[in-house]
Amino acid sequence: MPAVSQRSSSTPQSPFRKFAPLAEQAKAAGKRVYHLNIGQPDIHTPAQALQAVKDNQLQVIEYSLGEGNLSYRRKLADYYRQLSVSLQPDQIMVTTGASEALLFAMFSCFDAGDELLSPEPFYAIYHGFAHMAGVELRPITCHFEEDFRLPSIDDFARSIGPRTRDILLCNPNNPTGCLYEEPSLRALAALARQHDLYLIVDEVYREFIFGDRPFFSALRLDEIREQVVVVDSVSKRYSACGARIGALITYNRALLDAADRYAKLRLSPPTYGQLLAEAALDTPPAYFAAVKAEYDRRRQLVYHRLQQMPGVSSYLPGGAFYCFARLPIDSADHFCRWLLTDFSHQGATVMLAPGEGFYATPGLGRQEVRIAYVLNERDLSAAMDCLAEALRVYPGVGD
Amino acid sequence: MPAVSQRSSSTPQSPFRKFAPLAEQAKAAGKRVYHLNIGQPDIHTPAQALQAVKDNQLQVIEYSLGEGNLSYRRKLADYYRQLSVSLQPDQIMVTTGASEALLFAMFSCFDAGDELLSPEPFYAIYHGFAHMAGVELRPITCHFEEDFRLPSIDDFARSIGPRTRDILLCNPNNPTGCLYEEPSLRALAALARQHDLYLIVDEVYREFIFGDRPFFSALRLDEIREQVVVVDSVSKRYSACGARIGALITYNRALLDAADRYAKLRLSPPTYGQLLAEAALDTPPAYFAAVKAEYDRRRQLVYHRLQQMPGVSSYLPGGAFYCFARLPIDSADHFCRWLLTDFSHQGATVMLAPGEGFYATPGLGRQEVRIAYVLNERDLSAAMDCLAEALRVYPGVGD
Repeated sequence: MPAVSQRSSSTPQSPFRKFAPLAEQAKAAGKRVYHLNIGQPDIHTPAQALQAVKDNQLQVIEYSLGEGNLSYRRKLADYYRQLSVSLQPDQIMVTTGASEALLFAMFSCFDAGDELLSPEPFYAIYHGFAHMAGVELRPITCHFEEDFRLPSIDDFARSIGPRTRDILLCNPNNPTGCLYEEPSLRALAALARQHDLYLIVDEVYREFIFGDRPFFSALRLDEIREQVVVVDSVSKRYSACGARIGALITYNRALLDAADRYAKLRLSPPTYGQLLAEAALDTPPAYFAAVKAEYDRRRQLVYHRLQQMPGVSSYLPGGAFYCFARLPIDSADHFCRWLLTDFSHQGATVMLAPGEGFYATPGLGRQEVRIAYVLNERDLSAAMDCLAEALRVYPGVGD
Repeated sequence: MPAVSQRSSSTPQSPFRKFAPLAEQAKAAGKRVYHLNIGQPDIHTPAQALQAVKDNQLQVIEYSLGEGNLSYRRKLADYYRQLSVSLQPDQIMVTTGASEALLFAMFSCFDAGDELLSPEPFYAIYHGFAHMAGVELRPITCHFEEDFRLPSIDDFARSIGPRTRDILLCNPNNPTGCLYEEPSLRALAALARQHDLYLIVDEVYREFIFGDRPFFSALRLDEIREQVVVVDSVSKRYSACGARIGALITYNRALLDAADRYAKLRLSPPTYGQLLAEAALDTPPAYFAAVKAEYDRRRQLVYHRLQQMPGVSSYLPGGAFYCFARLPIDSADHFCRWLLTDFSHQGATVMLAPGEGFYATPGLGRQEVRIAYVLNERDLSAAMDCLAEALRVYPGVGD
């Protein structure tokens, strides 16, 4: 029997889905599992977006254009105008989720052996796509003790080598919830300009920023206009993860042409998802106000509950709907597995993402978990009850 | 400004979409363009499949499982049972079109530097995905004069080297319309067994076989059960290309686990497309009988019209909805471009796919075009009128 590829064996595994089979077993055994492991919001998709799909009159579900429907890209350009970003529709490529935008960016910008810098902990999937593309992801470590704020520019500068081609950010950050503001982005832009690097910024959580802090899109970095690539998605913005609609956005014509080669290979993004996404752009501001207020309450709830747990530390994240927590345990990996296989509290347990998989530096994140506060307050509170009780009774690795 | 990747520049371009901008320009100038360049059928998607999407009651468009909805995979297993193929749902991975199944297969089976053999002309997209994966596609040339029947097993055997890992087929074949029957597949299986190769077979056109010839799925090759990977899709079967739902199917557990790493990276296939695909499995046999009869009439029409054109040769294809034609011209590439930019007949022109892009061997296919007979008989006849007139007045390359 022929062997599978070596590269598939060494592909970094998703830390938030790797225990999915254990969760299924726990559920099959009658346990309730509170999923704080994955950014699947429980928020309703905007009603008029759902309705647009139901009202469609298509009789043939055809391929769309490889770059996505023009009507959708025109409306997207209007949306970005509200973020003080001026775009033409042909500077937007519609992709099958942000995942595909990342895949296209990796293959269009880099050759095998190239390197990119990314603050860690990072969205683990970046590591996987970089691996697919044969690109080395060099982590710039952010520190739990500093609420994961962006390291100094010197830390980035020191890591730049002859094959470094890019800085990759997620803003606001998944998995830390950290928001990077204009001064940080301007400083990275200066570095990118000096070293002729791309700056790829994943902005899929831009609607979810707490308090009055402003969001600054990388597309406004005029000083490196053609070096910026923004990755976007409707998944979180409109709670429509299954629509599989994202976008790759850049002012760089050569890069759009390169990405187009890959876009044509996979023919087109999904037709129904594009119908939904186009209609979602008409979502009234009241929807976002309510959703943000909801996430803010959840953020406060998780923060205050974690504060009360002995030996647990955390912080109040600035954006997205994630935070990290440091737990009084030896191995979050073991703990997260044990939560599913051996623990229950009032018939329930909680599923968390172990921190280690969000780091590239070996050994980091062992005591940390990522918490996605994507459940309503009652369920979130019950999940926190589970966590508190679990930490009380957890026997540790060596039992 | 940082350069784009070298690999993107050398990605083989899709021969059936590369003139798309010229077609758009022709249409903008008021010309009607008959699209015989791409396998986008005009056949209606089955009504109950369209209705299933319209009737959905989802309020949150969530990620599905990475491997696809279990309810859909269970029904798919029932569908394969009708093809004398026995499958468990966990041997089926739902993908975002057949394209993604090919991508996953390339990365899961092969490492960079590996080689695969494929009869040429081949579906050009194979070349692109192989290139993405750093895999060398070695063509085994089929000949126009032999109606593109499968070359002898010796031709395959002679091309096997130390890095050869796979034989990749499309059955029935896109772009030639050739059907490979059980004896050919058994012979390839023996070769695959002898040399420990994978056999990847793209069977997305299996519903479209003309006359009484039987279809034989590679999943029935028990002698190499764990070496077979089948790529499937609802795109052509149900005329639902934009649903973006395909499948990767194999009895090989290690390979499914490898592919799962890539599936988890991109999170999930599209939710709406899965609703459509699941409902499509209830399509009554009468639908396929009518569609096959329709394609058969088109096949005959194209064949007979081509026979009447001076200097043109073609053949009656056995399956799918494509054929090749050899034209009395020097460069099909130039001719196909000229059809869009300089020619019109009664306010219309025809778009064809130049043959060269379907070959890996330089120089082959220069006088050939692929014709997708995906339009109704009236339009197809008008398209053939355009082609006949174009060949009459075409000035050639050197004008």
